Amino acid sequence: MNFEAINEHRKTFPSKEQVIKQTPDPGVRQMLTHLDEAGIATAFDRFDAQKPHCAFGLAGTCCRICNMGPCKITEKSPKGVCGADAHVIVARNILRWVAAGVASHGSRGREVLLTLKKAACGELSLPLLGQEKIVTTAKAFGIYQEDKTVAQLAEQLADLLLEDMSRAVPAAHRTIAAMAPPERVATWSELDIIPLGSYHEVFEALHRTGTGTDGDWENLMKQLLRCGLAFSWNSVLGSSIAADCLYGPPKRSYIETNFAAIKAEYVNIALHGHSPVMPSALVQASREPELIELAKAQGAAGIRLYGICCSGLSSLYRYGEVHPLSNALGAELIMGTGALDAWVADLQDIFPGIMDVAACFHTKVITTSDSCRLPGAIHIAFDHHHANMEQILDKAKDIVKLAITNYPARQQGNVYIPEVSLEAEVGFSVENITQAFGSLDELAALIKAGKIKGIVNLVGCNNPKVVYEQAVVQVADTLLANDILVLTNGCASFPLLKLGYCTQKALTKAGPGLKEVLEARKLPPVWHTGECLDNARASGLFRALADKCGQPLTQMPFAFASPEWSNEKGVGAALSFRLMGLNSYHCIPAPVLGSDKVAGFFAHGTQELLGSVMVVVPEPTALGKRIAADFEQRRKHAGWNSK
Amino acid sequence: MNFEAINEHRKTFPSKEQVIKQTPDPGVRQMLTHLDEAGIATAFDRFDAQKPHCAFGLAGTCCRICNMGPCKITEKSPKGVCGADAHVIVARNILRWVAAGVASHGSRGREVLLTLKKAACGELSLPLLGQEKIVTTAKAFGIYQEDKTVAQLAEQLADLLLEDMSRAVPAAHRTIAAMAPPERVATWSELDIIPLGSYHEVFEALHRTGTGTDGDWENLMKQLLRCGLAFSWNSVLGSSIAADCLYGPPKRSYIETNFAAIKAEYVNIALHGHSPVMPSALVQASREPELIELAKAQGAAGIRLYGICCSGLSSLYRYGEVHPLSNALGAELIMGTGALDAWVADLQDIFPGIMDVAACFHTKVITTSDSCRLPGAIHIAFDHHHANMEQILDKAKDIVKLAITNYPARQQGNVYIPEVSLEAEVGFSVENITQAFGSLDELAALIKAGKIKGIVNLVGCNNPKVVYEQAVVQVADTLLANDILVLTNGCASFPLLKLGYCTQKALTKAGPGLKEVLEARKLPPVWHTGECLDNARASGLFRALADKCGQPLTQMPFAFASPEWSNEKGVGAALSFRLMGLNSYHCIPAPVLGSDKVAGFFAHGTQELLGSVMVVVPEPTALGKRIAADFEQRRKHAGWNSK
Repeated sequence: MNFEAINEHRKTFPSKEQVIKQTPDPGVRQMLTHLDEAGIATAFDRFDAQKPHCAFGLAGTCCRICNMGPCKITEKSPKGVCGADAHVIVARNILRWVAAGVASHGSRGREVLLTLKKAACGELSLPLLGQEKIVTTAKAFGIYQEDKTVAQLAEQLADLLLEDMSRAVPAAHRTIAAMAPPERVATWSELDIIPLGSYHEVFEALHRTGTGTDGDWENLMKQLLRCGLAFSWNSVLGSSIAADCLYGPPKRSYIETNFAAIKAEYVNIALHGHSPVMPSALVQASREPELIELAKAQGAAGIRLYGICCSGLSSLYRYGEVHPLSNALGAELIMGTGALDAWVADLQDIFPGIMDVAACFHTKVITTSDSCRLPGAIHIAFDHHHANMEQILDKAKDIVKLAITNYPARQQGNVYIPEVSLEAEVGFSVENITQAFGSLDELAALIKAGKIKGIVNLVGCNNPKVVYEQAVVQVADTLLANDILVLTNGCASFPLLKLGYCTQKALTKAGPGLKEVLEARKLPPVWHTGECLDNARASGLFRALADKCGQPLTQMPFAFASPEWSNEKGVGAALSFRLMGLNSYHCIPAPVLGSDKVAGFFAHGTQELLGSVMVVVPEPTALGKRIAADFEQRRKHAGWNSK
Repeated sequence: MNFEAINEHRKTFPSKEQVIKQTPDPGVRQMLTHLDEAGIATAFDRFDAQKPHCAFGLAGTCCRICNMGPCKITEKSPKGVCGADAHVIVARNILRWVAAGVASHGSRGREVLLTLKKAACGELSLPLLGQEKIVTTAKAFGIYQEDKTVAQLAEQLADLLLEDMSRAVPAAHRTIAAMAPPERVATWSELDIIPLGSYHEVFEALHRTGTGTDGDWENLMKQLLRCGLAFSWNSVLGSSIAADCLYGPPKRSYIETNFAAIKAEYVNIALHGHSPVMPSALVQASREPELIELAKAQGAAGIRLYGICCSGLSSLYRYGEVHPLSNALGAELIMGTGALDAWVADLQDIFPGIMDVAACFHTKVITTSDSCRLPGAIHIAFDHHHANMEQILDKAKDIVKLAITNYPARQQGNVYIPEVSLEAEVGFSVENITQAFGSLDELAALIKAGKIKGIVNLVGCNNPKVVYEQAVVQVADTLLANDILVLTNGCASFPLLKLGYCTQKALTKAGPGLKEVLEARKLPPVWHTGECLDNARASGLFRALADKCGQPLTQMPFAFASPEWSNEKGVGAALSFRLMGLNSYHCIPAPVLGSDKVAGFFAHGTQELLGSVMVVVPEPTALGKRIAADFEQRRKHAGWNSK
């Protein structure tokens, strides 16, 4: 292991003090200072307390896969008890991460698939709001028949997507067969990495990484690639299709973001998590006249919803008026306003730390998923079998009522809302982007002509290993100045939402070509596509534009960037874009540095296999410049207008 | 975290020197000394090199589930960056272990299920040798119809078992519904822990343990219990049923075990791993007259097979004449004889360390599973999709030929075989145990009368944290002396096989009641039931005897013991017996001591829920005595003859 590199890496980790000084959102700076003074600890305090971080964990060379250990790779102990070397240990650890990512996105997707299936067959009284999506997808899957009702098609689609999730007996992956670019399918077939199904490849990943099973780091990487495809083509795309079929497509709209979007005179409810199912019902419930009346009877002006992390974002682009406040890492700062009457947590990226902050205020936390409970929270949820889904609206109403009855308990003296807010435009999709340009041919032509030098999907969670939200902003600045268009979603999108990047005013940050193109079409330089699942929209756009340009994706000036990433899903997200032939760019390394072979596989080994690599550049502006330089290379290769 | 307890625990870890002095098998002592002198390192050297073991890993309080960490629980940092406390971190880590165990046993089972399905529908030309098992199981599942062929029933069974593996849409678990004791089904239903299917619960376990998902250690333990049921009722029982349907039931036979069973004049082939599929073909190939002739043409006396770990054991009880030599931890010692011409590794518990030992000799290692590759090995295998299974016999013949052609390369001067061997009886099953006693009523009556005070399934892998094979032997001695009958399988069974416990001669170790009963029936005091999957036979026997006694399992003097356990499957195995209402007993703790709540859940919390607990007593004789005492309590409670 390169201890020196790990040591240097650790030295770059900022302190909370540094975050307070350098994080770009003044609201965050103010709130962190306020909580610091109030003696309320957040993730930033806990991160400082974890220093110094274990070098073996950072390098990936700690093995805790059986009870003969834990083992660690050192000069004295170059192998674990079983004989696994650094390469095997690092490969196993990162494969388990990717597998867990498939499972996370997939489990959330499964809830939507079950809901779609139940709605389609009439078990749930939910309308199918994405009729057009159902029909076009059924056609893509080759199951469209004129004499079938939309509901029948929707049920069949749900079944097919569930089959791609759960197939145990080898057969074709229906979504990949129907939707992946043929050039990519050929590449993946050649590599023998097309997954049987998501459940299976995750199961197999855990099997392989067990004691004395796969002892070959390259074979482990092959399984990692399989999991990457399961991630993108089922866990993410399957989820995304199902959600659009059920809840309808995104709509562009404007919304007030950041702390001051919180209005103290309202019953305030935060939606936190990832599943759209309960949040959709909550939006509906919050708009029921009887509940609005109830809120007014308590002295409130009405009911107002706020989005934390992803489920709020997808509710926003479907239903409007769910004010985006913060990503997962900053959730405690929102809780710390003391102005939320209910905090509804569904699943994923709901740090247990929020409970300690909630305990300082009147805020009631409600958990709504069997997968995600928090001691001290009120649990109003679906059960493990989703057997009680037909009660969804009743449960949503109960939750809203709970918020309303809790409103009078709010201690006004404890409320602290930084006076910072801005407007942002949200809700971009392949469909409405196409509309905005008349056709994608037009957008493709602008890319080829070099007015737009390329497109980056700038996403990912946050990580206290870099100054909170700073890397995302600095990368965005660099990209825009280089005429590179930015798509964003999920956690990384919050600083861009909050700091004005999602409005036309931010065109001042764009280079001349990009500015010209976007000004003419009244578009912002950062297109907000929703939640982390909406990586599917970015890859859909990339694929469509490559087709229009007549180039394989490996030649297109497109990329994935998650500068501040931290969770297991994030590894899968980056990997799924690399599998498409697009590089991924990051400021924080994955824990693979303990193996030169595995690190090399990510950094250059996949170039030949997939036409793409993972690029890690710790300094954000340098990362942005690297992306611009790599795009220039791709443009040159394609013979397109370049610098 | 109780650092003192962890420190005390670490101090008990033996050194290689201590193992050489104290391990009970003289062959192992001799071989360890020989390899030490030859400068060939084994797991025991690597274990010593790993000292001191990381206290956080041992306690379970190291979290490496996202890239904000690694985090560790200390006085200064009582929570991880996300806010997860010791309880959540420990619970997540152990749940991931159990999930990986489900996946390991399940993946192996799936290979058998696919083979059964292909054989049943004629895609593979393999006979269905377990016709009776197919019919009785079909009846138990309620799918038997007189007009269906056995092959049709077998295919339907394979499909049902695959369905229990891969179900994504909630529905009844067919195997549990068909085969589990009603009292248990009621208990599990009450706890809401009946799994949807193995794939799903593993997927969900990874989902829950991801960043910011399940923040409630108790809810995580609930998922652990679900995984435990998926483990026992599909990964293990489903596998076991399929293997018996396809390859036929076990047969009792005698076999020479330990080093001197290796005959230098033969072409020697080791079978190492867990899947019965390729080993079954290898046994067949090794008995082909043309290949025996080929071996003789090379100057050998014939072809001889040896079992390492589990796949050799199941081949042995089905086909006979596969000499059991060692468990996984001792595999390198067998490799170190230099007398093996081919070493065929299928999957699981094949430590990568064997390759370093193989490199010192002429031995060729062949890997046969896509899940398990080893750099430097020859790969003659099924592909990821099992699409090439019809070539199984050709592949097996190629492997045997490879061994034959490698025989002349053996360097006689390098061969070192300790002159230690003994005979053992193997192949016990519920069916032939029933035969041996005339009926299970008889055995049940002997237990009630106190001639046999109880039965322990003494199994599990080995762990260098205790003196190799010593704990198993000392526990067995104590149990037998207390009139407790011992079942054994898998890794733990090797010392018992090698040291004469599986013969009637060992009745000298038995207490008077046990001795009388077994002498009269010409039975050994330790009944060898096969490989680790054959925990299914033990639980089948336990269940049948409980029914005969008219008692729930929670009241029966039966137990599971894995004194030396080490791998993830081992956690699942112990858990699945606890789920049946039987205690599990161990000399080595699981990495849960960092949370008093999770540790308490295992040690006493499940008593009320399941009627059973996990008991850890480091000293083996004391562990044996504890089992005997606990049986006395259960006997007393049942009003049966006790001390």
